Amino acid sequence: MKRIGVIGGGAWGTALAALSAEQGDTILWARNADVVDSINTAHANPLYLPDVKLPAALKATGDLAALQDCDALVLAVPAQTLRTFAEAIRMALPLNAPIVIAAKGIEISTGLLPSDVLHELLPGRVLAILSGPNFASEVARGLPAASTLACADEALGAALVQRLGRPTFRPYLSDDVTGAQIGGAVKNVLAIACGIVIGRKLGDNARAALITRGLAEMSRLGLALGAKRETLMGLSGLGDLVLTCSGTQSRNLSLGIALGEGNTLEQIMGTRRTVAEGVHTARAIEALAGKHGVDMPICAAIDAVLHKSREIDDTLAALLARPFKTEA
Amino acid sequence: MKRIGVIGGGAWGTALAALSAEQGDTILWARNADVVDSINTAHANPLYLPDVKLPAALKATGDLAALQDCDALVLAVPAQTLRTFAEAIRMALPLNAPIVIAAKGIEISTGLLPSDVLHELLPGRVLAILSGPNFASEVARGLPAASTLACADEALGAALVQRLGRPTFRPYLSDDVTGAQIGGAVKNVLAIACGIVIGRKLGDNARAALITRGLAEMSRLGLALGAKRETLMGLSGLGDLVLTCSGTQSRNLSLGIALGEGNTLEQIMGTRRTVAEGVHTARAIEALAGKHGVDMPICAAIDAVLHKSREIDDTLAALLARPFKTEA
Repeated sequence: MKRIGVIGGGAWGTALAALSAEQGDTILWARNADVVDSINTAHANPLYLPDVKLPAALKATGDLAALQDCDALVLAVPAQTLRTFAEAIRMALPLNAPIVIAAKGIEISTGLLPSDVLHELLPGRVLAILSGPNFASEVARGLPAASTLACADEALGAALVQRLGRPTFRPYLSDDVTGAQIGGAVKNVLAIACGIVIGRKLGDNARAALITRGLAEMSRLGLALGAKRETLMGLSGLGDLVLTCSGTQSRNLSLGIALGEGNTLEQIMGTRRTVAEGVHTARAIEALAGKHGVDMPICAAIDAVLHKSREIDDTLAALLARPFKTEA
Repeated sequence: MKRIGVIGGGAWGTALAALSAEQGDTILWARNADVVDSINTAHANPLYLPDVKLPAALKATGDLAALQDCDALVLAVPAQTLRTFAEAIRMALPLNAPIVIAAKGIEISTGLLPSDVLHELLPGRVLAILSGPNFASEVARGLPAASTLACADEALGAALVQRLGRPTFRPYLSDDVTGAQIGGAVKNVLAIACGIVIGRKLGDNARAALITRGLAEMSRLGLALGAKRETLMGLSGLGDLVLTCSGTQSRNLSLGIALGEGNTLEQIMGTRRTVAEGVHTARAIEALAGKHGVDMPICAAIDAVLHKSREIDDTLAALLARPFKTEA
């Protein structure tokens, strides 16, 4: 695996490209010409990764065709743009290089997981998923982190682990491509729920219970979609959930906190440039859960608060009033 | 289940006695005469549960024999004193009331779980375990919380759930008595590890990975001892681990932070009245893991730092240098 192409010059794409460039030929595609320039001339991406020195060997480009001869592509773009990028790859890069999907989320308009979107547009392409509790800025600064790398082709997966892995960035190999995408899709909704609990000052016990019961409903959805249980309990599932629900860098958590403090969604949105992903994901998860007959009371409650004008206190009371049950 | 006796006038015993007293006849045994007095006269336990109003119906006693006619006993005492209390129960209360163990931990001198200690001294007694992410002060103030209640006798377990459960305190019923004790035994060691990561400023990614991989090794130990996987992933396992590793009220976490900041165990102990439970548990877990052939690298690393004079940075480096593996 000589040459790696990374698509996406945001924080995560740049951090992954830097990891790869430390071990071999790597080219990063970025949409923003300033980003391309500063990587090539100043070995830095001050817009998305301030205060991080990038390897001098890392090259950037604004021309997708420059990734033509790569042995693997890493796709680090927002989940809602995956379809556009899959089209662009099909047009500009008519090759069979495997694609590592480093995007997290669910396609809101279809309810599809990232790998399903790519399979639709790039049939037959070998895909891998990289997903875990990874704030890009920490990875880029060389702080220790671990992740799940899932690939149905075990030899390819092992090669990717060797190429992207470092002593301080440890990908754990899995063959569960579906499972590795569930956490990234559901965690943002649960982070909003955790934020509400924090904003309402309901305490640490409630937050820990919410994370635990949230993982249980995330797992039910995953198992219904064919995921393996150990993947859901691993870095891409539980790990990312814990990070998103306790790290201070999550926009979904802070949106939940603002809701819990009594602000309306409209008020919060008025102060933000972008919508937190979980706001839309809540709708898509609710639909997916319904389609597969999976009980997801916490996600349903968040969907109701966000989109059905349900009062937070009524919703919390209804969650609490569920009959005592066993812990499956 | 008319009359409940709670043994232990600390924060957790008092909180559980208050829950029970809201629904029926309850008597609390406390060692401290001041605690007994203030509960009976002022309906408060300012020593252990400041600023909480207790139900007027809750009665306290310093005489264990006053619990003679209880239909169930709740044992909320420190894990290292369980053997002493089991002896006292055997002498003072020659009856067959089931015992709900609300103590968490492992008997350091023997490596036994609480239920094993009680079985040894009170053979044939029906036992239940109550364990989950429950800071007593939050439960006592009526903030929402959930817990695992494990009992091999399903009808008895259901009766206990009804008696102790409230809309704001939800016990989930389980039949996995062993599994419900694993989290409480291992979490304090992992909380020290999380504290070290915080103290060393290694970032949120590292902490999330540590919790995830820590749960994996907690689960391996639990499965080797006969626990069910869903219990380990539930409130008494994952839930309590998340609370202890992120709540600000954990003495084990704060001990780890001090270690991570460069203080020695001796220096830290010089400033504290009591030893954090995890310091001793690390030794016992290391022994238990060895006995059952379970790989627990994080717990072993903490044991080495605490008791084998291993340098923290060397230990972290050795943890990170483990070969890339799959996520089981």
